[in-house]
Amino acid sequence: MPAPPPAVPGEADVIRWLTPSTGRPDIAVGIGDDGAVLAPAPGQSLVVVTDALVAGTHFPADTPPDAFGHRALAVNLSDLAAMGAVPRWATLALSLPAVDAGWITAFAAGFHALAARSGVALVGGDTVRGPLFAVVTAGGELPPGTAVRRAGARPGDAVYVTGHPGDAVAGRLLPGTAPGPAADYLRRRFRYPEPRLATGRALRGLATAMLDVSDGLDQDLARLAAASGVGLVLDVDRLPLSPELRAVAGAAATGHALTGGDDYELAFTAPADAGARVLALATPGCPVTCIGQVVAGAGVRWQSGGRDVAVPAGAWQHFGSEP
Amino acid sequence: MPAPPPAVPGEADVIRWLTPSTGRPDIAVGIGDDGAVLAPAPGQSLVVVTDALVAGTHFPADTPPDAFGHRALAVNLSDLAAMGAVPRWATLALSLPAVDAGWITAFAAGFHALAARSGVALVGGDTVRGPLFAVVTAGGELPPGTAVRRAGARPGDAVYVTGHPGDAVAGRLLPGTAPGPAADYLRRRFRYPEPRLATGRALRGLATAMLDVSDGLDQDLARLAAASGVGLVLDVDRLPLSPELRAVAGAAATGHALTGGDDYELAFTAPADAGARVLALATPGCPVTCIGQVVAGAGVRWQSGGRDVAVPAGAWQHFGSEP
Repeated sequence: MPAPPPAVPGEADVIRWLTPSTGRPDIAVGIGDDGAVLAPAPGQSLVVVTDALVAGTHFPADTPPDAFGHRALAVNLSDLAAMGAVPRWATLALSLPAVDAGWITAFAAGFHALAARSGVALVGGDTVRGPLFAVVTAGGELPPGTAVRRAGARPGDAVYVTGHPGDAVAGRLLPGTAPGPAADYLRRRFRYPEPRLATGRALRGLATAMLDVSDGLDQDLARLAAASGVGLVLDVDRLPLSPELRAVAGAAATGHALTGGDDYELAFTAPADAGARVLALATPGCPVTCIGQVVAGAGVRWQSGGRDVAVPAGAWQHFGSEP
Repeated sequence: MPAPPPAVPGEADVIRWLTPSTGRPDIAVGIGDDGAVLAPAPGQSLVVVTDALVAGTHFPADTPPDAFGHRALAVNLSDLAAMGAVPRWATLALSLPAVDAGWITAFAAGFHALAARSGVALVGGDTVRGPLFAVVTAGGELPPGTAVRRAGARPGDAVYVTGHPGDAVAGRLLPGTAPGPAADYLRRRFRYPEPRLATGRALRGLATAMLDVSDGLDQDLARLAAASGVGLVLDVDRLPLSPELRAVAGAAATGHALTGGDDYELAFTAPADAGARVLALATPGCPVTCIGQVVAGAGVRWQSGGRDVAVPAGAWQHFGSEP
């Protein structure tokens, strides 16, 4: 429970509210000194990712603070998942317009709930007064040479996606008051993205290329295709649209899945003869669906019934065309 | 030289402007994938630090972009120096209100000039549209057990500071148009803080406690004293005030040195019998000065001629009392 704030809270108070007690033998020095001192696992590569979340740009200003805390970590863990890495630690830079102990403890609860079940220790940070934003840098490990890159897809490979793309953007677009279990489910999918860590790790040595879907399936798969120097032919009719997305978005469901973004699912390629092993990674909470194949050439073509279809406009762009 | 911006620059353009070509054998994957993949040096501990710089809060909004780029990295390297670590890599989260190729290339030039001469590779980042801020996370290495902590000062130790505390705040307070070599020097000390990496590294095994001076010598030494469970008795008459600071600030010089902040010098303690070895670390660009000693007890006492003197108000506080 949040303690009442002191009359004039200082950075030390904020750090205390944010910092749980942890005791990991691989962390020689945690929060509280000039830097954290960590013991990397011998023989492992270090994977480092960083993502910024700015209020109003990356999430609605009325996002609950625990969802903000969850998301700040989740989007980074999603990047680690997309490399196949096992998360180990994170740092947090948090800028706040004002000090509100209740807000900060709720933020910390969202952050640490995900951290605890992901094996992540918060080892350092910086708290400042300013516009509302959070920047998390996360570190993970994997055996040398096993990172799954964006480059590596080969003609003949199959293309897969985890989860249900489009759910998150549908949840983001819903009015906060829209009632019903489908609305509740979609809002939750937007507010609490689940990094696909176990799936990403299991795909080491199996996926030929992988990334996480943050800007929309169409745009992110185009990046994978470009990095790999291949083309992709994808079937909109095989998109794993959730019943909730179909119910709420109707005819817009496919567009949401292609360009909505904020999914934090994994998109990847794997050899055609590995299909059974890939599909066996599906769990009740995380389906794995084949949506097309890799071809020689360039770019992404979406088809329906064997004919090309246009992708609706609306893909996320950080600069320039951003809404 | 900055290239003319495209009509609608995107994140890829910004990343290109920010990213130099590097080829380090310990970086298996650099910028451009979901994460960087690094090979830690075998048997070394990993030191991780992070610092946020927000326009208007941490530096004046009219700071030249190359100074902003320098500073964003320098404040992090200063933290690594204060642990005794050797810097290796950094990530950068950069939020910009608008895309300006000239601004970004100048920022990158300031960042990379310091990175290149410090052995730092930029391995990852995130560029977003939002209020002007930068968050850098930096990684360094040192042999296990050699990190210099804030705790560790013992009664009888001597207290030292590098450089000339107070110069930076004097430079910050100067009107941008103030003429003369002293003003130029002080502005430069504020705009281009020099992380004391070589000194920090040389103090491994010699300093008993250390931190970097970011919030003012008085406040930061109070943190060192608290972490170490000791008191400090310090002599204001031994403060290494620069001639430029004395000339520009006059009677305010001592106050600037005690509470001004933004110095990014190292403050540390070392055994009394190590004085000669410590003082031998001084260089023309980085003097090392003994300013007092560690005593049993708690807190920081400043004296002049053996009598206690009050510290002027004005120490930096991120939250609450911040100006």
